[in-house]
Amino acid sequence: MIWASGWRLASAVSNAGGLGIIGSGSMYPDVLKEHIIKCKAATNKPFGVNLPLLYPNIDEHIQTIIEYKVPIVFTSAGNPKAFTSLLKQHGIVVVHVVSSSKFAKKSEEAGCDAVVAEGFEAGGHNGREETTTLVLVPAVCNAVAIPVIAAGGIATGRQMLSTMVLGAEGVQIGSRFVASNEASSHENFKTAVIHTNEGDTVLSLKQLTPVRLLKNRFYNEVKQAEEKCATPDQLNILLGKGRAKKGMFEGDVEEGELEIGQVATLIKTIQPAAAIVKEIWTDFEAALTSPLNRR
Amino acid sequence: MIWASGWRLASAVSNAGGLGIIGSGSMYPDVLKEHIIKCKAATNKPFGVNLPLLYPNIDEHIQTIIEYKVPIVFTSAGNPKAFTSLLKQHGIVVVHVVSSSKFAKKSEEAGCDAVVAEGFEAGGHNGREETTTLVLVPAVCNAVAIPVIAAGGIATGRQMLSTMVLGAEGVQIGSRFVASNEASSHENFKTAVIHTNEGDTVLSLKQLTPVRLLKNRFYNEVKQAEEKCATPDQLNILLGKGRAKKGMFEGDVEEGELEIGQVATLIKTIQPAAAIVKEIWTDFEAALTSPLNRR
Repeated sequence: MIWASGWRLASAVSNAGGLGIIGSGSMYPDVLKEHIIKCKAATNKPFGVNLPLLYPNIDEHIQTIIEYKVPIVFTSAGNPKAFTSLLKQHGIVVVHVVSSSKFAKKSEEAGCDAVVAEGFEAGGHNGREETTTLVLVPAVCNAVAIPVIAAGGIATGRQMLSTMVLGAEGVQIGSRFVASNEASSHENFKTAVIHTNEGDTVLSLKQLTPVRLLKNRFYNEVKQAEEKCATPDQLNILLGKGRAKKGMFEGDVEEGELEIGQVATLIKTIQPAAAIVKEIWTDFEAALTSPLNRR
Repeated sequence: MIWASGWRLASAVSNAGGLGIIGSGSMYPDVLKEHIIKCKAATNKPFGVNLPLLYPNIDEHIQTIIEYKVPIVFTSAGNPKAFTSLLKQHGIVVVHVVSSSKFAKKSEEAGCDAVVAEGFEAGGHNGREETTTLVLVPAVCNAVAIPVIAAGGIATGRQMLSTMVLGAEGVQIGSRFVASNEASSHENFKTAVIHTNEGDTVLSLKQLTPVRLLKNRFYNEVKQAEEKCATPDQLNILLGKGRAKKGMFEGDVEEGELEIGQVATLIKTIQPAAAIVKEIWTDFEAALTSPLNRR
C-alpha cells in the first residue's frame, strides 16, 4: 500500500470500524511522523503502521513509531526477529506478513502477536513459493498457534468469510482501498484499477523481488528484457529509481510501476473508505447468515 | 487426473457418494472403452468422463461415450462449442473446465450445463491468466448463470465450504484422490505427493502449455533451459514423449512429469477413496455448522 495509504485513508478506515494502516515504505522519516500526527488527530480509534523491514531508514521509522506510541505495527519483507522484541518492549502489538508456513513459524518464535498469511494473488511484493491464499491460510493455521490474518485476493465480504472459514481470524485488504477516495494514489491509477480485467496483473521481476503488477508499457519492457535473458543487473537498470512513485503517485500509468492484486478485476467503483468498510461488513454478515446462498 | 483416475478410482468415488470421473486423456480408445465397461460393472451410481478436447483420437472417445451412455462429460483444454451440442443431443450432461470468465461465458453460450472454474493452484494444465480460485470463482459466478464448480486448491471440507461461500455449487477435487489407494498412479508418485511441501510445485512450461508440476530433476532441466532462453521447439524436444506416463504411471519421480496441485502440501496420507470422500464431507458439514471456529 505504498503511495496509497497515508493518514487520510488509515484514519477513515479506523473511524469506519476497520484497522487503518499507514504504509510507511514510501515515506521519508519526517513524512511518516507527519502522517502519524495527522492520523492521531483524525481518529481516536486504533490504527497501525506497515513497516517494510528492508526500508533504508528503518531505525528512524522505529523511533518515530515508539515515540508517537503507534499501537500496532505490521512488519514485512524481512526477518521478524529484527525488531519484534524492541517494539513489544514498548507495548506495541507486532504482526508479521508472511507468504509461507516456514516464516509464520519464525514469526511466532520471534514473539509476534499474529501473522498475515498473504497469498500469490496479492498485489505488490510477494513470496517466491507462489502459494495461493486458499492453500496458504490452512497451511499457516496448521503451523502456528497465534492468530492468522488472511490477505491476497480479498475485496468482498464473501471473500472475507471464505478465508475465515479456512481458519483466519481476520483479513487484510489492500487493493479495494486503493480504489477509495481517501487513498493518496493518483486518480489515473485508481481509474486503471477499476478497469482491470482477469489476467491484467502478473507476478513480475522474479529475478529481483517478485512483485505483482498491472500490465502496462513498463511491464512489457520488463517482459521483453526477460525474454532476451536479461540479467538481474540489467533488470535493475531498466527498473531504475522511482518507478512505483511515477506510476501510483504521479499517475504515469504506462511508464510507472503499478502494484495491485488480482482481485482488482472485482473492483468496479472508487468509493469512500467508510462505504467500502460498510459494504464488506454487510456482505460478510449476509454470507455468514447464508453461506451457501450467494446467487 | 491422467494416469490417476481409471475405473477403480471413479467407481470408488461414485460408490462413496461423490461423482467419480474417468480421466480419458491418457487412454487409447480401447482402454477408455474397457474402463467405462468396468466402471459400470463396479457402480450403479452416476459417473463421468473427463475429455481433453485436444486429444488426438477425440472422435473415437466421443463415440465410445455416446455408445456406452456415459451420463456426464467434463470437457477441457479446447473450445466448448466443438462437441457440446452433439453430446447433449444424446442426453449427456456437459461441463466445461475454464480458467477465466471469458471462457465460462463461451461455455454457457455453447450450451454447457455447468462450468468448472479452476484456479492457478490446480495441478496439471492451467490457464495463462494465473487467476487463483479465490478470485476466479466469484468472477465466474458474476459472469454466468449456469452452476459453477470450483477447482484448484481444494483437498479438505473447509476448503470446499470456502469456495462454495464464493458462489460455487460444488467442487472438483483432483490431487487428494491421486493419494488414494484406488488411483492408478504409481506408488512412488503417491509417496512424493504426500511429502510435498509449500513451494514444491510450480507452474512450468509457460511457453508451451502452462502445467503445474512437482519440482524434480526433469523440472530443473526445464528451468535451466528456460534460463538460457530456450525456444519452444527446444523445450518440446526436452519434454519429449511420454514424460507424464514415465513419472505418474511408471514411477520415475526424477525424470518424469509429475502433475499435482499446490494443495498437495496439505495431503499427508494415502487413503481409500471412500475414506477421503467421507472425511471431506464430515469436515464440510462441521465447517458449515461452525464456519468461524476452525481452531
